[in-house]
Amino acid sequence: MAEPVRISLDVMGGDNGAEVVLEGAHISLKRHPNIEYLLYGIESEIMPILERYPEVQAASTVIDCEISITMDEKPSQALRKGRGKSSMWKAIEATKTGEADACISAGNTGALMAMALFCLRTQPGIDRPAMAGFWPTLRGESIVLDLGANIGAESYQLIDFAIMGAAMARAVFNVEKPTVGLLNIGVEEVKGQESVKIAGQMLNEANLDQLEYKGFVEGTDLGKGTVDVVVTEGYSGNIALKTAEGTARQIAEYLRQGLSRTWLTKLGYILAKGAFVRLREKMDPRKVNGAVMLGLNGAVIKSHGGTDGIGYASAIDLGYDIAKKELMKKISHDIEEFEQTRIAFEGDTN
Amino acid sequence: MAEPVRISLDVMGGDNGAEVVLEGAHISLKRHPNIEYLLYGIESEIMPILERYPEVQAASTVIDCEISITMDEKPSQALRKGRGKSSMWKAIEATKTGEADACISAGNTGALMAMALFCLRTQPGIDRPAMAGFWPTLRGESIVLDLGANIGAESYQLIDFAIMGAAMARAVFNVEKPTVGLLNIGVEEVKGQESVKIAGQMLNEANLDQLEYKGFVEGTDLGKGTVDVVVTEGYSGNIALKTAEGTARQIAEYLRQGLSRTWLTKLGYILAKGAFVRLREKMDPRKVNGAVMLGLNGAVIKSHGGTDGIGYASAIDLGYDIAKKELMKKISHDIEEFEQTRIAFEGDTN
Repeated sequence: MAEPVRISLDVMGGDNGAEVVLEGAHISLKRHPNIEYLLYGIESEIMPILERYPEVQAASTVIDCEISITMDEKPSQALRKGRGKSSMWKAIEATKTGEADACISAGNTGALMAMALFCLRTQPGIDRPAMAGFWPTLRGESIVLDLGANIGAESYQLIDFAIMGAAMARAVFNVEKPTVGLLNIGVEEVKGQESVKIAGQMLNEANLDQLEYKGFVEGTDLGKGTVDVVVTEGYSGNIALKTAEGTARQIAEYLRQGLSRTWLTKLGYILAKGAFVRLREKMDPRKVNGAVMLGLNGAVIKSHGGTDGIGYASAIDLGYDIAKKELMKKISHDIEEFEQTRIAFEGDTN
Repeated sequence: MAEPVRISLDVMGGDNGAEVVLEGAHISLKRHPNIEYLLYGIESEIMPILERYPEVQAASTVIDCEISITMDEKPSQALRKGRGKSSMWKAIEATKTGEADACISAGNTGALMAMALFCLRTQPGIDRPAMAGFWPTLRGESIVLDLGANIGAESYQLIDFAIMGAAMARAVFNVEKPTVGLLNIGVEEVKGQESVKIAGQMLNEANLDQLEYKGFVEGTDLGKGTVDVVVTEGYSGNIALKTAEGTARQIAEYLRQGLSRTWLTKLGYILAKGAFVRLREKMDPRKVNGAVMLGLNGAVIKSHGGTDGIGYASAIDLGYDIAKKELMKKISHDIEEFEQTRIAFEGDTN
């Protein structure tokens, strides 16, 4: 059997807690029988559910944690209350101590980001972590970062994001030299923030081995899949992500209304059902569930809080993937390689 | 007959020039017979097409302009070349001299913004103009600004945008006290840029008569139509707009592929065609074509460069609407009213 991949789960995180987490663990374990789980949470709540999944139970160690972080706690509150002892903290910490290869939590995003940063610290040469997620496109999937770990980014941070995103693309898409674009707006001369312009210049001139820089991309390129990795600062990245989600829901609602209007459209819907099932699959947020916090000394994956077992399993699969491919090590290596180039450009950054 | 509304058209602007502009003029004139057109462009190119639309010809004055701005010219180039004499400049200028009540151009966005700003200047009390457009939503339409006239915005500029957007909503949606939201991202405590947070505080405390401030909204709220007016700085606004366009195209493509796969799905498509026609209508970019440059001493509307006659007519209709409702005057009035409040808050702005 393959070497075990050890994954720590914050079992108390998410809107539906242990139910969803353990169902997800069950689904992912079937796909990857060499997973070993570390389950962090209130033992008395975990055990009755865990008993329903004997395979998961056999592959798991339960670590009783007295405290769990709620979905509405502020990051600062969560840190005060949960540092050192909450299920979220301890699941993260396991990737620091080396007990786990990756950590998954569906808990409170702000708290998770704060705790992960506080507990794991950034990798050498990286100033701020970024949240990287998958974007379904007409050509498959792209990686988009930052999805909201930071507000704003200096040019050298955008370059860190590019290098980290490319490392992730190499690990999960199995492409040797991923294409990378900087998200920008399409007005000549005023073209984008200074930091984006400078980052573009630097990426052009650096001519890195590990990625192919394709220049600026626009919001319309996200759905097209023009590049493997789209880099942007977290404010606009988060807005783009949520705008796309909202637009997809809006169109689904128009379709639903339109198709249920007459007996003819209803019949048409039944006959063409295959097309709608395919559409739903293509846009299924559960398939792309899981965003990685890149740039930390440990692999932490944020699952959507409201997902179900299938979605949670995707987040575990992602953790499994990046752990097996040793993504964090690759990032360290690539960043180090870039350091020299960075020093040469230091004078240009703002 | 109603008092004439005089609209200046940059006939040379857009990917398809005079053909589309004059067809649009024809369509809009049927809906608003009291329009009088000022047609700016190369007379010898305009006349043969104009003769095909005798009603438009009867309602028009043609002003021969030797120079037209191409779609790929940089704003600075365009200004040097076209200032004082290009069809774009002269169409804009007509709103300054009072010859026209509104100006429409489908030309080069950057050039149009630069020329409009240079020729018309901002209204008293307004620092920078904003590009405001319509967003189709599940509840109808919202106004979103800034869509890319500026990169970044200070808190007081966001408040100008809120006041200008609300004035536009009152004018075109006929609501007395439009609801306004500030676009932001959903992470507690790190919540958004400083400028957005401060603008939110100020709007809360100012408690303006002319709008109902609803707090922060997220990208998902755009498609829902949570508020009448969504305010954001131009970089993220432009990215949101293009991301939504891209997502809509992506879903349409998935549907097309899915529906053409088997004879069953094809038959289903034919039966349910009404639903798809409705969807297309709901999302038809031509219906919401036309973005207004708010905050200038003149009403300038940017039409999409690649639109057709139907789309161009929407932009003219919009110009007609805001001219009739004297939007620019209303904005002046509302901004002046807010000045006192602004002074009180001046210490807080960053």
